[in-house]
Amino acid sequence: MTPANREALSRLLAARPTLVDVRPAIEAVPGMTRDTILHAGPPIEWPRMSGPLRGAVVGALLYEGRAAAPADAERLAAAGEVAFAPCHHHDAVGPMAGVVSASMPVLVVEDRTHGHRAFAPVNEGLGRVLRFGAYSADVLERLRWIETALAPALGEAIRQADGVDVHALIGQALQMGDECHNRNRAASALLVKTLAPRLASLDLAPAARRQALAFIADNEHFFLKVAMAACKAALDAAHGIEGSTMLTAMARNGTDFGIRVSGLGDAWFTGPAGRPEGLYFPGFGPDDANPDLGDSAITETAGLGGFAMAAAPAIVTFVGGSPAEALSTTRRMYEITLGEHDAYRIPALDFRGTPTGIDLGLVLRTGILPVINTGIAHRRPGTGQIGAGIVRPPLACFERALEAAAAAPRGVAG
Amino acid sequence: MTPANREALSRLLAARPTLVDVRPAIEAVPGMTRDTILHAGPPIEWPRMSGPLRGAVVGALLYEGRAAAPADAERLAAAGEVAFAPCHHHDAVGPMAGVVSASMPVLVVEDRTHGHRAFAPVNEGLGRVLRFGAYSADVLERLRWIETALAPALGEAIRQADGVDVHALIGQALQMGDECHNRNRAASALLVKTLAPRLASLDLAPAARRQALAFIADNEHFFLKVAMAACKAALDAAHGIEGSTMLTAMARNGTDFGIRVSGLGDAWFTGPAGRPEGLYFPGFGPDDANPDLGDSAITETAGLGGFAMAAAPAIVTFVGGSPAEALSTTRRMYEITLGEHDAYRIPALDFRGTPTGIDLGLVLRTGILPVINTGIAHRRPGTGQIGAGIVRPPLACFERALEAAAAAPRGVAG
Repeated sequence: MTPANREALSRLLAARPTLVDVRPAIEAVPGMTRDTILHAGPPIEWPRMSGPLRGAVVGALLYEGRAAAPADAERLAAAGEVAFAPCHHHDAVGPMAGVVSASMPVLVVEDRTHGHRAFAPVNEGLGRVLRFGAYSADVLERLRWIETALAPALGEAIRQADGVDVHALIGQALQMGDECHNRNRAASALLVKTLAPRLASLDLAPAARRQALAFIADNEHFFLKVAMAACKAALDAAHGIEGSTMLTAMARNGTDFGIRVSGLGDAWFTGPAGRPEGLYFPGFGPDDANPDLGDSAITETAGLGGFAMAAAPAIVTFVGGSPAEALSTTRRMYEITLGEHDAYRIPALDFRGTPTGIDLGLVLRTGILPVINTGIAHRRPGTGQIGAGIVRPPLACFERALEAAAAAPRGVAG
Repeated sequence: MTPANREALSRLLAARPTLVDVRPAIEAVPGMTRDTILHAGPPIEWPRMSGPLRGAVVGALLYEGRAAAPADAERLAAAGEVAFAPCHHHDAVGPMAGVVSASMPVLVVEDRTHGHRAFAPVNEGLGRVLRFGAYSADVLERLRWIETALAPALGEAIRQADGVDVHALIGQALQMGDECHNRNRAASALLVKTLAPRLASLDLAPAARRQALAFIADNEHFFLKVAMAACKAALDAAHGIEGSTMLTAMARNGTDFGIRVSGLGDAWFTGPAGRPEGLYFPGFGPDDANPDLGDSAITETAGLGGFAMAAAPAIVTFVGGSPAEALSTTRRMYEITLGEHDAYRIPALDFRGTPTGIDLGLVLRTGILPVINTGIAHRRPGTGQIGAGIVRPPLACFERALEAAAAAPRGVAG
């Protein structure tokens, strides 16, 4: 391994992401303005946005009161009146459409080793939700309840607890059948367990306490956004190491798949977003699927998700395949990673650490593409999740990164 | 399989244990009196009781106000002033010493298929606790807090929720790395998650709500007693089938190991309790260990614990061995069981059901003894847990049961 990659990997592993607060994006997220709408994946403008992303943008403009009706919102967006930016350009990550606007609360995760912060929106639950492009009245009402009731309570409980050690929590969850991307049942329960005593003693009406806890407890994917922000914080610590070929982001905006590389600055190397292969909910099939969407592949970039499938044999009932394939998927990922995670360990592999730190050089040399567990969004805005499965980045991302590396002052040194 | 064994197994699998209440033993447990002290395992009188069981009896007499000092309590017990009875004779199960006295609250689990109930005391946490024979002031104070604060709140939350489906919860926990005997981390978190919204909205002081939730949330073995009562309820549904050679209880009192067989009435078939093999906490070794103790082997009798080790590879850090051995342990248990559980499934074995329904005939024919995951108690009362490991029943239990079966009107028909 090159010194640059050793440094990048060691910073990634040294990170100690801690959930420290929940605050409005406008207060917490650097560079956020009232005009800004963040989205998942690499940069994209309105004309090239896919259905679910457009729907979520419309929803955010309605929620912020910048438009009174969907048609007004679309006009505003098409007229260039909205400052679109990737979540990743603002230290944030968003699931699926990944839309974050000024008033939305964000989870604040701090890397207590290196000191910086990363952000992700609060999970809205399943069904009709903004992240799948829904913007009906119930969706906006739930967003306002999250803003005015849930987020302040959650933030208070987290501050009272002096933060929640997400690094340790993920380590536990991997021993409990989660891979912390498409399966978060254990991690979500552990998070509820950690915060329940504080939430229960807040000075709120009994029904408000109950509602807040029930909302979190009934959502077994609640933890995903915490995991995403934690992975983003850890990878940001490893970004910008000159000469390093380690990936620090994989992200999709529903049209393009993009990667970032530690030693190649803030450039995105993109290719067309693919369609996941997996299991569809009854009544849906591949023709209904939007191309791959969301910043959640940040989990794979940090050694979780598809890379940790061997820890989560039960996930095959959700994404397809067999428990044996879950083991072999993880085993294959060791071939394209720089190391093994020292805190994220897999019992079924004799407690071996998850494959961590995807190397551009190893991917190109072996031809093995990273495996990403993902949800599948309907291509029509607001229909919601229609399945889950596995997707891989297009090879073009890696080839373009290689060209950039070759042109870089020190060349590529995978 | 004989019709009698088919009937016993099918009743065991049809049971739907549901946690329905928490109530004082004197009100809930059939035949309980103010003079009664229930204990783990087969019947035993004071002179033959081991250290931890004696300590727990002393603690219960102090807690009930029947003795003012330990020496008084011992005199009372030795004078025959205490009505000792196995938990199992009162539809109950107790961990380790298994001592239950009149004022202690018990978890009430109802089998919603067959209608009867089973009981187990509330988990006190780790460290110095009654079930390991401790009876210092802090132990008794905690028992009183459980009686007056925790149990009423817990009971209210459970009743408001119209019960907790323990059958489904165990099924989930097995997909999350628990075997529900020595590893209950997932099940305990799921239980907290289920009850937290109700507990949070009870009309109690904020600190009381917080304390109740924190006590449950901080104890990753809290669920064990729920699992034990659920297994007892399910096995009681299968007890008393004429001609059936299926085991309906395995239990230890710290001196004797006893088994019960569905078709052989309420008789116990006993042999000397062994010493577990496993991992000791720092500073302790096999010489400190009490012989095997507690009713918790009811979990193995119902297809959990050691029989479900393949679901819980991470448990090897607690009881010893390797993840591969956890798989082979479960695989071996299929050779002595009548069937596979339809709701308790193991992802790592391609979702095969756990080996369930230990058959007397199969044990004797194969010579394979049931594997039991267990905690190890110090032989001195009150020292507490000093390790965890694996233990097997003495063959004598099975040989004596065979003799009884041969003498029974219809003979043994394994």
